Amino acid sequence: MNASEKKPKRPGDLEKLFGPASVAVIGASRHPGKVGHDVLANLVHGDFGGRLIPVNPATDTILGLQCYPTLTDYGREVDLAIIVVPQPSVLAVLDDAVKARIKAAIVITAGFREIGSAGAALEQQVVELCTRHGVRLLGPNCLGIINTGTRLNASFAPHMPQAGGISIFSQSGAICTAMLDLATKKHLGLAKLASVGNKADITEVDLLTYLAHDDETQIILGYLEDISTGDKFVKAAEEAASNKPVIILKAGTTAAGLRAAASHTGVLAGADTAYGAAFNKSGVVRADTFDALFDYAQALALQPLPKGDRVLIITNAGGPGTIAADAVERAGMRVATLAAGTSVLLREQLPRFAAVDNPIDVLGDAAPERYIAALQSAQNDPEVDAILVILTPQVMTRPAATAMALAMHLDGSKPVVASFMGGTDVMPGRSQLTGAGLPDYDSPERAVAALKAMYHYALWKNRPPRMVTRFPVNSRRVERIITRRQRTGRLHLDEVKGKAVLNAYGFKIPKGALAAGAEEAVEIAERVGFPVAMKIVSPDIINKSDLGGVQLNVGDGEMVEDLFEMMMLKIARKVPAARIDGIYIEQMIGKGLEVIIGMNRDPQFGPMLMFGLGGIFVEVMKDVTFHLAPITEAEAIQMLKSTKSYAMLEGRRGKKGVDIGAIASGLQRISQLTTDFPQILELDINPFIVGDIGSDPLVADVHMTLAALK
Amino acid sequence: MNASEKKPKRPGDLEKLFGPASVAVIGASRHPGKVGHDVLANLVHGDFGGRLIPVNPATDTILGLQCYPTLTDYGREVDLAIIVVPQPSVLAVLDDAVKARIKAAIVITAGFREIGSAGAALEQQVVELCTRHGVRLLGPNCLGIINTGTRLNASFAPHMPQAGGISIFSQSGAICTAMLDLATKKHLGLAKLASVGNKADITEVDLLTYLAHDDETQIILGYLEDISTGDKFVKAAEEAASNKPVIILKAGTTAAGLRAAASHTGVLAGADTAYGAAFNKSGVVRADTFDALFDYAQALALQPLPKGDRVLIITNAGGPGTIAADAVERAGMRVATLAAGTSVLLREQLPRFAAVDNPIDVLGDAAPERYIAALQSAQNDPEVDAILVILTPQVMTRPAATAMALAMHLDGSKPVVASFMGGTDVMPGRSQLTGAGLPDYDSPERAVAALKAMYHYALWKNRPPRMVTRFPVNSRRVERIITRRQRTGRLHLDEVKGKAVLNAYGFKIPKGALAAGAEEAVEIAERVGFPVAMKIVSPDIINKSDLGGVQLNVGDGEMVEDLFEMMMLKIARKVPAARIDGIYIEQMIGKGLEVIIGMNRDPQFGPMLMFGLGGIFVEVMKDVTFHLAPITEAEAIQMLKSTKSYAMLEGRRGKKGVDIGAIASGLQRISQLTTDFPQILELDINPFIVGDIGSDPLVADVHMTLAALK
Repeated sequence: MNASEKKPKRPGDLEKLFGPASVAVIGASRHPGKVGHDVLANLVHGDFGGRLIPVNPATDTILGLQCYPTLTDYGREVDLAIIVVPQPSVLAVLDDAVKARIKAAIVITAGFREIGSAGAALEQQVVELCTRHGVRLLGPNCLGIINTGTRLNASFAPHMPQAGGISIFSQSGAICTAMLDLATKKHLGLAKLASVGNKADITEVDLLTYLAHDDETQIILGYLEDISTGDKFVKAAEEAASNKPVIILKAGTTAAGLRAAASHTGVLAGADTAYGAAFNKSGVVRADTFDALFDYAQALALQPLPKGDRVLIITNAGGPGTIAADAVERAGMRVATLAAGTSVLLREQLPRFAAVDNPIDVLGDAAPERYIAALQSAQNDPEVDAILVILTPQVMTRPAATAMALAMHLDGSKPVVASFMGGTDVMPGRSQLTGAGLPDYDSPERAVAALKAMYHYALWKNRPPRMVTRFPVNSRRVERIITRRQRTGRLHLDEVKGKAVLNAYGFKIPKGALAAGAEEAVEIAERVGFPVAMKIVSPDIINKSDLGGVQLNVGDGEMVEDLFEMMMLKIARKVPAARIDGIYIEQMIGKGLEVIIGMNRDPQFGPMLMFGLGGIFVEVMKDVTFHLAPITEAEAIQMLKSTKSYAMLEGRRGKKGVDIGAIASGLQRISQLTTDFPQILELDINPFIVGDIGSDPLVADVHMTLAALK
Repeated sequence: MNASEKKPKRPGDLEKLFGPASVAVIGASRHPGKVGHDVLANLVHGDFGGRLIPVNPATDTILGLQCYPTLTDYGREVDLAIIVVPQPSVLAVLDDAVKARIKAAIVITAGFREIGSAGAALEQQVVELCTRHGVRLLGPNCLGIINTGTRLNASFAPHMPQAGGISIFSQSGAICTAMLDLATKKHLGLAKLASVGNKADITEVDLLTYLAHDDETQIILGYLEDISTGDKFVKAAEEAASNKPVIILKAGTTAAGLRAAASHTGVLAGADTAYGAAFNKSGVVRADTFDALFDYAQALALQPLPKGDRVLIITNAGGPGTIAADAVERAGMRVATLAAGTSVLLREQLPRFAAVDNPIDVLGDAAPERYIAALQSAQNDPEVDAILVILTPQVMTRPAATAMALAMHLDGSKPVVASFMGGTDVMPGRSQLTGAGLPDYDSPERAVAALKAMYHYALWKNRPPRMVTRFPVNSRRVERIITRRQRTGRLHLDEVKGKAVLNAYGFKIPKGALAAGAEEAVEIAERVGFPVAMKIVSPDIINKSDLGGVQLNVGDGEMVEDLFEMMMLKIARKVPAARIDGIYIEQMIGKGLEVIIGMNRDPQFGPMLMFGLGGIFVEVMKDVTFHLAPITEAEAIQMLKSTKSYAMLEGRRGKKGVDIGAIASGLQRISQLTTDFPQILELDINPFIVGDIGSDPLVADVHMTLAALK
């Protein structure tokens, strides 16, 4: 369990973590190469302006600073303690530090939860100590933090990065150092960096909340292997993404990845589908690869968001233009059609053989001036939303001059990204691009992927206000059913009770009733009208059909009577121990399209709604979509549209389409039901039979499982 | 039309292109920056050992070489002429050059087919002149060639690359220069490079054939926007790929890409599906992105092929190991399980907290020795097929020393690739990796993608011998039907004739016959047995069902009689002009699974076979696979397995599977039919009804279109 669940949020506390006036290094060392030395050296060499207090009982001074045997010996208040002593001493020095009234602690030392139960128990003691004294804790088993704004390098990362707008949190210290190193090479500036380690107290949720409101942070980058509290994550991420782009690489997404993650951090990672749904909902830009994490960051940090998906390509050769146009189309974006005036203007400014449509080919001998002419036209063209500039090294090419000229002529009206393709010759240009504000990519394909990420973030950011419909329902009836079932421990709701629950939430169910005897069965059948379906109802039998517990299309009363006796006999013979509630007699359902709507409660993110077409579409083609509840109508319709089989709903080959709104409404009602009742663990309406527009869909069968009472 | 189609292949002729004893530059110039100067300067500065003859009527010497007014003025034999004069003079100087008995020509000058019909006409004259005199022509509109073996830089590419095993051909000069520049940066050596330009004579087919047998070429890289002659390409590529890896980036794959390609080279690009099928068949490793082209090349040029798909990861941090494991799984490969002995050995050699399963984590403070211990264990482990080494920059990390140590300890038994993640700090290591023989990647994901490409190439290379089954068939009957139809111009074969053709190739068709009148219809129906299907047969009606031209499940003779009259009346009323051959009376087909098998003749690559499940699977889910004919049984079965809906064929939920061998046999028979009869342009058996194992599938309906007689 995570400590942050137990106590009130205090995001303001992270101020003392990132902006301390004084920092103690407990376990500071005189010996270069030891973490206790390197952390202190980073603080000293980084020109941190606050007080620095090395703590080590065996030494007088380190790096010219007076050293104290314990922190309480220092005698003045200290904001932040960085603990680098060996694992067995951590608790003792922390105890001393809280006595010295620290506000925040970073435990860099490893050997806690990640090494097994003994480590986990120690970690728990550390957390409890901190919590008791209102101390926020980063780590253990982490790299530390960096704040370029106050020149605070409270980490054992080798260098202090240049200042800028990117902030990073990471569950892997090595990913931190790799990103720092990449940022240095790319001349990208960082605001804050935090290595969260075992996340015993401070998690991604705290950091998202803090960085969302941190003025120095323009975009947030994260590397995660698991998420500690799913619902809080979604809330914090959505809030942060509303302010600034949040890009996350979630590793451990596959079975093999999970094994590796388990051996790494000893935590259970959530299912990838749920992460996808959570990121979608909260506006997180998901990076699928390490390259993508930085690729997207460059574009989002340096360029404005696009207003649409029409991409213009400027190139000095045809081949790369073709590659780029392929990439735009594959990314689901559009190759812009230039406004007529733009082509006319370009025709005047560019040589005779230059291509003045899209891609604009400024030709192999293009000097910077031609690139500028093309860039300016494109920036002024209202039919263009985003621009990709490609340069290949040819005889007359001047990569460095072109890079600087391009950067100087950006007008900030729409995103511009660049790919200077090649190696040694283009390097003088490439090395200047990012520093000058123009994102730089190895290949046109990667540049286009970054534009796509920007476009999707812009779509999310400009989405219409979310209005979750609240349907009038009979929640007291559902409350009663659920409470009774939980008390009796019959946690799987059979079809009859499941339908009753759904009916209370406005779902139409076929007419029918439970018959205890053959005579009653005939009466019910006559009431609902022939033909009827007959289904055994028993808490002990789930797969009714397999055991002969279902009869369809029963045409008359006599048949109902005969079948009643026969079914009861058959079940008694096959499952002698089964408790039988009776046989449910129900009107036969007419024709329609079979779909499945359902909910699975993710341990991290809560109710995850599912939609798919029935039968082979779900079973063979796995053609389903997910969305976290609560869901709006627009989101529900988007779920339907995201399946490959959506065309089946719209009708094809002259067949009429089904009532899409009715399915969306069903999803919204499930959303409301499972949000209202956290006791429902899973629910499948399969099939949900939908017909023509205006007709109510019918719940043909339903399975529902409740949580056990604790 | 392409000149190479008209004359016998002379691959040997390319010897004079790549290995000339003497080279003339026609249009040589004294002025740096002009192509005529730069090409000559490249030849001079590249230390080419043969004779160099500048040709320019206005100058005496250039770069210290004696200059001649025309090539015939030179008076000695010349192997290769490079033509850089303005477009209007090309034909005249080429005429002079052929008089001087040149063996090969490179026309660098642009302004031919790519500028329209006038240019195309001139290009045709150039080709004819060359062909008449047995001169092989590269270009026009190209960059030239490079042969590092003879230090021949007959191009205007800025630098002579270092010698090595990679040869490149490209339809884009800029892609050539970008790849050269990348190779320089990566310290990768090149053997030969050819920019093919407009491919007026020498095409990718000539180059594949030549490079396949060139001893200096270890792997072949290609950039293509179209393919000139599909069948020859497949043959040449397959031959080349059997000798050495062939990696191709095919651009212009999407609609937007195609538009760009058309405006670039003025040639029509083939459909992407057909290219995919052609590359698959011929063993070409397809690069989907520019990055992938070079990424794959590094691995295939420097490392041995893997024997399987079990990947071991060595890392100095957990996070990147997790990312890599994710990538391995997503690539469809396996995260290797180490042999027990390996873990025991590693436990002895590595520190206590190191992970000794997969990923092997040598920890953040790992010196080169730990990497070597892990590498050696992995190389010796029979459960490991390929190795990925990851390094992140941490405080104690020594990237350069680790790179060199790793490279020195490669034993060549299995492929090893590396990803040193980061920027500035890892650069001293990264810059040495490739040159030292260890492929170097920005990220673990890209390294894994390269391993995947290697693995798939290895699978192709080690595929069992291809045995195309030749079924006994009645081809004379098909010949007769086709010939008659082509003569009469009735190119769409109706169901009756289509079934006759298929029947002659061993397909089982339902019993039935064509009835001209109602009485005959009843007789036929009685013979084939009730119930029957009745289908109108008319050359003018394709969608029979839509016009009421089909009746199913007709139960008795009286009904057959009535329906015959009614259908004839209905059709006569709806399509008064239609010629009616009669009504086809056919036994009703029993139950089975509906699949589609078909063939579409690609203009480039010939008969392309298709397979998919019927109905929604094809129409809504587009779940189909393609393969070029002729096809083997194993390939046909692979086609079935490559569909997402394959589970439907195997049976599910207790339903029995269908006869997969019978479908494969149907595909093979279609393969044989459409290979035997190039006159068949397209063919769809839809549905092809397949049943239990051992039962013959039935052709329920067929459409077939023939080529018009020329």
